[in-house]
Amino acid sequence: MLPRGRPRAMGAAALLLLLLLLGFLLFDGRLRRAAALDGDPGAGPGDHNRSDCGPPPPRPSKCELLHVAIVCAGHNSSRDVITLVKSMLFYRKNPLHLHLVTDAVARNILEMLFHTWMVPAVRVSFYNAEELKSQVSWIPNKHYSGLYGLMKLVLPSALPAELAHVIVLDTDVTFASDISELWALFAHFSDTQAIGLVENQSDWYLGNLWKNHRPWPALGRGFNTGVILLRLDRLRQAGWEQMWRLTARRELLTLPATSLADQDIFNAVIKEHPGLVQPLPCVWNVQLSDHTLAERCYSAASDLKVIHWNSPKKLQVKNKHVEFFRNFYLTFLEYDGNLLRRELFGCPSQPPPGAEQLQQALAQLDEEDPCFEFRQQQLTVHRVHVTFLPHEPPPPRPHDVTLVAQLSMDRLQMLEALCRHWPGPMSLALYLTDAEAQQFLHFIESSPVLAARQDVAYHVVYREGPLYPVNQLRNVALAQALTPYVFLSDIDFLPAYSLYDYLRASIEQLGLGSQRKAALVVPAFETLHYRFSFPHSKVELLALLDVGALYTFRYHEWPRGHAPTDYARWREAQAPYRVQWAADYEPYVVVPRDCPRYDPRFVGFGWNKVAHIVELDAQEYELLVLPEAFTIHLPHAPSLDISRFRSSPTYRDCLQALKDEFHQDLSRHHGAAALKYLPALQQPQSPARG
Amino acid sequence: MLPRGRPRAMGAAALLLLLLLLGFLLFDGRLRRAAALDGDPGAGPGDHNRSDCGPPPPRPSKCELLHVAIVCAGHNSSRDVITLVKSMLFYRKNPLHLHLVTDAVARNILEMLFHTWMVPAVRVSFYNAEELKSQVSWIPNKHYSGLYGLMKLVLPSALPAELAHVIVLDTDVTFASDISELWALFAHFSDTQAIGLVENQSDWYLGNLWKNHRPWPALGRGFNTGVILLRLDRLRQAGWEQMWRLTARRELLTLPATSLADQDIFNAVIKEHPGLVQPLPCVWNVQLSDHTLAERCYSAASDLKVIHWNSPKKLQVKNKHVEFFRNFYLTFLEYDGNLLRRELFGCPSQPPPGAEQLQQALAQLDEEDPCFEFRQQQLTVHRVHVTFLPHEPPPPRPHDVTLVAQLSMDRLQMLEALCRHWPGPMSLALYLTDAEAQQFLHFIESSPVLAARQDVAYHVVYREGPLYPVNQLRNVALAQALTPYVFLSDIDFLPAYSLYDYLRASIEQLGLGSQRKAALVVPAFETLHYRFSFPHSKVELLALLDVGALYTFRYHEWPRGHAPTDYARWREAQAPYRVQWAADYEPYVVVPRDCPRYDPRFVGFGWNKVAHIVELDAQEYELLVLPEAFTIHLPHAPSLDISRFRSSPTYRDCLQALKDEFHQDLSRHHGAAALKYLPALQQPQSPARG
Repeated sequence: MLPRGRPRAMGAAALLLLLLLLGFLLFDGRLRRAAALDGDPGAGPGDHNRSDCGPPPPRPSKCELLHVAIVCAGHNSSRDVITLVKSMLFYRKNPLHLHLVTDAVARNILEMLFHTWMVPAVRVSFYNAEELKSQVSWIPNKHYSGLYGLMKLVLPSALPAELAHVIVLDTDVTFASDISELWALFAHFSDTQAIGLVENQSDWYLGNLWKNHRPWPALGRGFNTGVILLRLDRLRQAGWEQMWRLTARRELLTLPATSLADQDIFNAVIKEHPGLVQPLPCVWNVQLSDHTLAERCYSAASDLKVIHWNSPKKLQVKNKHVEFFRNFYLTFLEYDGNLLRRELFGCPSQPPPGAEQLQQALAQLDEEDPCFEFRQQQLTVHRVHVTFLPHEPPPPRPHDVTLVAQLSMDRLQMLEALCRHWPGPMSLALYLTDAEAQQFLHFIESSPVLAARQDVAYHVVYREGPLYPVNQLRNVALAQALTPYVFLSDIDFLPAYSLYDYLRASIEQLGLGSQRKAALVVPAFETLHYRFSFPHSKVELLALLDVGALYTFRYHEWPRGHAPTDYARWREAQAPYRVQWAADYEPYVVVPRDCPRYDPRFVGFGWNKVAHIVELDAQEYELLVLPEAFTIHLPHAPSLDISRFRSSPTYRDCLQALKDEFHQDLSRHHGAAALKYLPALQQPQSPARG
Repeated sequence: MLPRGRPRAMGAAALLLLLLLLGFLLFDGRLRRAAALDGDPGAGPGDHNRSDCGPPPPRPSKCELLHVAIVCAGHNSSRDVITLVKSMLFYRKNPLHLHLVTDAVARNILEMLFHTWMVPAVRVSFYNAEELKSQVSWIPNKHYSGLYGLMKLVLPSALPAELAHVIVLDTDVTFASDISELWALFAHFSDTQAIGLVENQSDWYLGNLWKNHRPWPALGRGFNTGVILLRLDRLRQAGWEQMWRLTARRELLTLPATSLADQDIFNAVIKEHPGLVQPLPCVWNVQLSDHTLAERCYSAASDLKVIHWNSPKKLQVKNKHVEFFRNFYLTFLEYDGNLLRRELFGCPSQPPPGAEQLQQALAQLDEEDPCFEFRQQQLTVHRVHVTFLPHEPPPPRPHDVTLVAQLSMDRLQMLEALCRHWPGPMSLALYLTDAEAQQFLHFIESSPVLAARQDVAYHVVYREGPLYPVNQLRNVALAQALTPYVFLSDIDFLPAYSLYDYLRASIEQLGLGSQRKAALVVPAFETLHYRFSFPHSKVELLALLDVGALYTFRYHEWPRGHAPTDYARWREAQAPYRVQWAADYEPYVVVPRDCPRYDPRFVGFGWNKVAHIVELDAQEYELLVLPEAFTIHLPHAPSLDISRFRSSPTYRDCLQALKDEFHQDLSRHHGAAALKYLPALQQPQSPARG
């Protein structure tokens, strides 16, 4: 064990120097041992057969379960952790158990994500970071990771007592190899070692970066805690909890705060108890900080294993090889996560919840069925990443309304205008590929209008299959709305500037929800021109209507869709009026958040909103048209999805089949009352409806 | 060596059975040896240090150059080979030399692709498949790979005499591991072995698949030739050229043709000379044919190395684990190839042609320059995949015209209408990601109108950078036009139905090219409505113009762009008339194919066509308006790219800087004559121009 120098006066400096030098020499030997191991983790399973020479078999057995712990808090870290997990899953060949220490935001995101991702042979457990806060909140800390950065210290007590080995990862690492090779390094631990770490690849802990730079004590360059192998069992036995607290308290007598969070404390403990640490080969934590010395590592190595973006600048860090590492990171950032739903051959594992039923249902589909694509799309479970971007939930207000809509990449340019028209909360589902989700992120970041809005929640539903799952998207957005009321809109509509305020006032006046079960109808109009001056009032709107600059929505192609709104009456109306349901009615409505969900069987284009209004009517929602409300549809080119299917001759037949099944279900739920809707369901419908 | 049974009568059957059994036993032992190697190739570089035990170091040294040969012909195989190369590059850690035996089509595609891909430490050599044809065309062959399938047989003589080792791959394999591990298996060859192969993973060569199924002779199940390790030096020494020809000729006395191309002949030779073959572990060629037995291999293995789609159904093959393998394939199909431009650390290699100058130019850019993105985009070398889909060049006709345009994903739905309006050849550049290129492929395949057109050439330019490289795209499409004349159009315009015929007639009548240096102007109009009945004649067009259903192009926002066309005169004109250039003129024109290229410095939106017309005028092209020609712009929502930059305040400044530099170059080339354009270049321009 090394004596620790804590100079209080200039006179002690010489002693310190001597001690440091001594520490260095000891440490150097240990590093050399690590360097000798450097190439070793790549050794393959063939070595099983060579037990007569060298160390024990380095790879875990084919189906051994590997445990990984990650601390994750907030929206941005949740996105990071998904990229990390994608890189890990890409190379892994073993079942994994992820132990995620999360705040409420990250848990909400990651629980839904893993539930819908359905990756075979991956188990996920959550641990409440809020409950662990008190154990570390007494430590003053200047690192950008905040309190959560310190939580790695309490993992031995926070993780289940029966868990003996775990790999601990920062959210900003990327795998470039199979994690089982890292796990295999546990086999190199001596009987007393408990913490596997890679040397810190900067001069930070040498304390010579700038004048008066005073880092926490460390062995030589110290260790980086972005990747840790933890023998939890040994740490618990060794009294880890007391050990690190004691060290931290003592250091904090002379140091004002941790600079690098948990890493400072790990290093201080290790300096005191060097026997705890097993140095790992540098390739397992290639650190890309601003003053990185990592090049020494990666130029010599034949193979990089884990890349660590440990600069606060992350991918913008300056480094002459950053382009190489960035490409590596982008690979997994943009990687289609659906492709990771790969089973592990020869490793029997509990299928993810729901996966077995889904497999069976998919297996029962008939590939020769002309509607096969519809059936398959209906059964598809899309990966869902809720609140993809930072989001502030709206304060609880009794009559507040969230605008609910869904879109894909080709409607992104609607968002700015929508934000200008609707100052209230929004819940938007976006149907994107993983790569498009990154383009979307940049789009938002580069728009001052959008970046400023914290009350718009964006939920990414990852693309899969040939048909647009319009109602599944609407349901995701609807389920994430947090206000008592929702305005069920479509992305190519811009509401009246006053609509948000007017709706809240109307809800209050009408006693919607508590006294009345009603759907408030927002009359819909359309313009056929791109360049169009949006009316500021009903009077202006009526004037535009009269000169033919506006029409009632789908006036030329499909008047039935909105005819029951009774535009003639609306023109004169001063108060809300009730209208009756009629076939093909599909108004835009405001309803309580707990309204019926959209029927997810309607995929592609057609009948998706109509069916929802039928369900509202069957559940006896009153339909009340609001006299001052309006929303206007802007023109757009037909989307790629719609063009592809409009011309398909089987499309109508399949849609009719869906409608028939919808009516069967309607009869099952509502009995004879559903008879009312039968004629409407049997009449042919224009395939151009959206 | 095994005696070969060739029964001519039923009486010989018993003998045959005995011989087969004997062959099987011998073969079985060899396979077991291979199985013992199975896990071995994964052994890592650490084994260098353990030379005291077991076989020699299995990995090639860090920077050893590995050679790979692939036979590739036609448009579809060229796409396949790119996916194979992407998977190989993803995992590789060594410099590679690709030896590509190609027909003219594949060479044209792949030469441009690799030239623009600029992957460090990859060298590509081409060999002319046409010249090798005569060496194999005498062999009757029923396999779907055709004559090209047989060409692997002549590689020992076709490849350079100094090349001793090569890995030979079919275009339908995908790597799931580092190719250096495969290369390392050369070290396991005995002194006489020359061909490394994996067992064929079906019962084909056992000859019991159906009644009267009579395969070529093979050892047991035989070997699959999708992945071959070839010791070219030893084959040449052993007289391979005579050897395989002799065997093939003899077998063809009793067998009508090869069923599996080169594979039948390789197997027949090996049956005769079993000492040539080194069986390889099954994971190096996991074969997904219809009746595959590969599951035996991949369920037991801890690691798959190479997947082989050796069914004619390719990804549509039926197999209970096909989803797993398909996901793997899709990974590389959709992988952003730009990310593979990664250098190999610690392996000094000759940079790809042009790469060094490019690096220097990029390094000289100032990141603080507000126009940095423009500068960077101008320097970007985009990967280009010409004739992405099968394409028949138009027959040579002296006055033929190709429509030239460029587009991104959001304009795909224009293609069908464009095909209906323009029955002649087209050359279209598409700006896509790798994943979008696959969506595009499916879009074309699912459209009967588009799939039927073999005279439309689609050239994929892979996306990179934030600004739309509009003129670089135009230049790619222009360079690939094969007719003497080109109509330089934009994707959101539909030409008059008669335009193609009318242009050819006009070119002939006017003696364009040979007698006159002229640009024929096609007057441009626009409609603001989606649903719009396209005029069938000039008379109909004028009627629509008179009722306000049509306008001259950009009449409201930017009349200067087309004012010199003189629409009033056009209305009455019966013959072509000459017009003078004026500032901001940007008509759509027909010119000889060897016209000036577009100036690639104009990226994003603005001044890209205007600059081209300036250059035409400076080079003294006559501008002749055609009295019966017209083209009509259809409305569309602004693209994402344009929305992002229109609002940017630095956009105008950067565009002005580009214009200034353009004028400097113009003066350099045309001297005082360029003064004429100076005022036009200095006036401010609306940033909304496209």
